[in-house]
Amino acid sequence: MGLRFEIVARDPGTRARLGRLHTAHGVVETPVFMPVGTAGTVKGMTQGTLEDLGVEILLANTYHLYLRPGHEVVREMGGLHRFMGWPHPILTDSGGFQVMSLKGLGRVTEDGVWFRSHLDGSAHFLSPERAVEIQLALGADIIMTLDECVEYPASHEALKRAVKLTGRWAGRCKAALGQRNSEFRIQNSESSEPPTPSPQHPVPTPDSPLPTPALFGIVQGGTDLALRRESAEELLNIGFDGYALGGLSVGEPKSETYEVAESTAELLPQDQPRYLMGVGTPEDLVECVARGIDMFDCVMPTRNARNGCVFTSEGRLVIKNAQYARDDRALDPACECVVCRRYSRSYIRHLFVVGEMLAGILATHHNLYFYLDTMRKIRQAIEFGKYEALRSRVRARP
Amino acid sequence: MGLRFEIVARDPGTRARLGRLHTAHGVVETPVFMPVGTAGTVKGMTQGTLEDLGVEILLANTYHLYLRPGHEVVREMGGLHRFMGWPHPILTDSGGFQVMSLKGLGRVTEDGVWFRSHLDGSAHFLSPERAVEIQLALGADIIMTLDECVEYPASHEALKRAVKLTGRWAGRCKAALGQRNSEFRIQNSESSEPPTPSPQHPVPTPDSPLPTPALFGIVQGGTDLALRRESAEELLNIGFDGYALGGLSVGEPKSETYEVAESTAELLPQDQPRYLMGVGTPEDLVECVARGIDMFDCVMPTRNARNGCVFTSEGRLVIKNAQYARDDRALDPACECVVCRRYSRSYIRHLFVVGEMLAGILATHHNLYFYLDTMRKIRQAIEFGKYEALRSRVRARP
Repeated sequence: MGLRFEIVARDPGTRARLGRLHTAHGVVETPVFMPVGTAGTVKGMTQGTLEDLGVEILLANTYHLYLRPGHEVVREMGGLHRFMGWPHPILTDSGGFQVMSLKGLGRVTEDGVWFRSHLDGSAHFLSPERAVEIQLALGADIIMTLDECVEYPASHEALKRAVKLTGRWAGRCKAALGQRNSEFRIQNSESSEPPTPSPQHPVPTPDSPLPTPALFGIVQGGTDLALRRESAEELLNIGFDGYALGGLSVGEPKSETYEVAESTAELLPQDQPRYLMGVGTPEDLVECVARGIDMFDCVMPTRNARNGCVFTSEGRLVIKNAQYARDDRALDPACECVVCRRYSRSYIRHLFVVGEMLAGILATHHNLYFYLDTMRKIRQAIEFGKYEALRSRVRARP
Repeated sequence: MGLRFEIVARDPGTRARLGRLHTAHGVVETPVFMPVGTAGTVKGMTQGTLEDLGVEILLANTYHLYLRPGHEVVREMGGLHRFMGWPHPILTDSGGFQVMSLKGLGRVTEDGVWFRSHLDGSAHFLSPERAVEIQLALGADIIMTLDECVEYPASHEALKRAVKLTGRWAGRCKAALGQRNSEFRIQNSESSEPPTPSPQHPVPTPDSPLPTPALFGIVQGGTDLALRRESAEELLNIGFDGYALGGLSVGEPKSETYEVAESTAELLPQDQPRYLMGVGTPEDLVECVARGIDMFDCVMPTRNARNGCVFTSEGRLVIKNAQYARDDRALDPACECVVCRRYSRSYIRHLFVVGEMLAGILATHHNLYFYLDTMRKIRQAIEFGKYEALRSRVRARP
C-alpha cells in the first residue's frame, strides 16, 4: 500500500533495529516516538514548535476527531494534514481504545461497538468498516484496524474472545480498505487530469482524493503469550503493512510488558514496522527498542508536563514543589532544549502556581524534547552498534 | 536617570512623533505598543515568540508579582528580566490601578492604600515609597509612580482630590527613588570591583545591583481638562523621565479619550516620552499617536484572543461562530503572520470549540502581530510624513 519500510542497521547485541518508514508525507526515522495530538493538536504546542523539536510523525485520535469537528469537516477541509497545518506524516488510531475506555458507555457486538459520546451522551456505532471510513476521511498516512482491547486483569476466556474478534475485525478492515482502493482506482481512471499538488501546501486539496494509507493490524492477547501468538498468526495470515501490539501498559507489571513485547516482536516479520501502542516512560522506550519495537506513542510526556511533572536526566521532578521556588537552575541542567537554556525552575514553578498557560507550554516543550532526544540517542546507539552501552546508562539513572 | 529619549522624525500634518527610547536593556522604537505580561508572562506566549513578533518592551504588573511569587523572590532570582528570561526592556506599573480596581477590597488614605489580596484576603499596604521599593526589587527599566485612579463617572470633587493626592504621591515616589539612588551610589563607591555582565545573560546577576530605573509620573483628572492641566503642572514641577496619562479608557466616550489625550499631550515636554495607559483598540492607537502619544499598553489583543475575538484588516471576527466551521481561509487573508500562513479559521474554531490550549496561543499570536504591525505602519507613516494617509485608511476600515 502506501508504505515502504527499510532496515538500515541492526544492533549486534540486542534486537534493536534502525529503520526508515517512507510515507506519502515524508520519511520517518525509526525507532520513533509519536507525540499524541488527540484532537488534532499536541496540547500547548504549535505545529512550528513540533517541527523545531524534530517531530517526524504525530498520532491523532479518531474518536475525538469523529465527534469534533467531525471527520466530514476534516475531509472537506482537505484532510487532517491540511486541517492541522501539519504536512508531515500522521497516524490515526481506530477509535476503538477510547470507545472501550468509556466505562459503561460502550457495548461490544460481533458487528462492532455501540457507544455513547462522552460529550452529550449521543449514541454512535463503530464497526471495522466505519473505523476505516472515518480514518480515510481524516486522511492519515497510517491507519489502524479496529480491535477489542480488554482490561487488565482479564480472564483467559475474555482475552481469547477479544483475540478472535480482533482477528475477524482486522480482516473486515482490510477488506473495507481494499474495497475503497478499487473504487479509488476506478475514480482515478475516470479523471482526466491528475491532482496537482501545490508547492506551498504539499497536502491534498479538498477536491483531490487522498493517497491510500497504510493499514496496521493490532495483536491482542493480554499477557498470555500463547494468545499473543494466536493473534499474531491470524493477522499475519491476513497481511498488513505493519503490526501493532495493543492491550499493553494497561496495568500489568512492567516485566510482563517487556516479555510480551519481546516474544510478540519475535513472531512478526523482520521487514515490517512494529508499533507498541501507548508505551511509555523513557526507560520503557529504551527497553522495548532492545526487544525489537520500532514505533511508540504515549500521552505521558505531554500529560505529565501539564501536571507539572518533568522528565530529566536525573529522574522526574515535580516542579510545583516549594523547594523550587528559589531554584535558578534549568529544569534539567544537562538538557539543551530552548526551555532549559532560557528559563529557571523558579520561573516555571511560579507559572504553575499562578496557573499560567506558559507553564504547560514550557513543560510540554521540555518533556517532548527529552523524549525525542532519547529517541535520537537510541537511533545513534543502534547505528554505532552500542545499544547495550546506552541501556546500561539509562538503567543507572536515579 | 536611566532613560534617554530622542525624537527622530515628526509628521508634518499631525502631532505624531517617531522616537527612540534608550533603556538599560536596549532601544525601543516609538510609538510603541507594550504587550501586558501580568504575572511575568504574556499569557500563552513564550519569550522567544515575543522576540519573533518584534516585541521590544513588555509591561508587567507589580500587584500580581508582589503577591506571587513575591518581589523578594524576583529580586533574589536576579530581577524580572532574568527571572522571566526576557533580556529586553520592561516597564512595571505601580500596582495602584489593580489595588483600586479590587472593589471593596481597597481603602485609600493620605499615606497610601490598604488592600486585601484577591487570592486569600490577606491585608496589605501600598504607599508611594513601597510601590517604588517593590518595583526596584522587580528591576524594571521604567517604573511608575503610585497614583489614585478614580472610576468613571466621578464628581469634580473626587477627581480634584485624586489629582492632588496623585501629585503628592508622585513627589514621594521621586524622593524614594532619589533616596535609593544616593544609597546606591554609596554602595557602588564602596565596592572595589564593578559588576561584570555575562555575555549570555546581559541582565544583572543576583549579587549585582540593578541599574536605576526611569520614573514616569501619571497625569490624572478624568475628562476634566482643567484638572488634567493642574495635574500635569504639578508633575512637571516635580520632574520625571516621562509622563503617563492615567484614568482613561475607563468608560468615558471615545471622543473624550481623544480630546484628553490631545490636550494633555500638549502640556507635556516635547523631548520626553508620553504614555497613554490601558489604551486601546488598533484605531485608538492610530488616533492617539496623531495626538502626540508615544507609548501604549492594553490587555485587549491578548485577552480578546483568549475569548476568541481576533483583529483583522476587515474588522473583528468572533472565531467561535459556527459560520467558520468550514471556512478554510486564514483568520485575516491579508495578514502575513505565521498563524495566518499556516492555519485556517476552520481549524482555529475547532480548537476553541474543544477548549484546546492552542486556540488561545494562535489567536494571541495573531492579535499581537496585528497590533505590532499596526505600530510598524504607524512608525513608517511618520517617517514618510504621511500620517494622514494611514489614518484615512484605518478610518475607512469596516
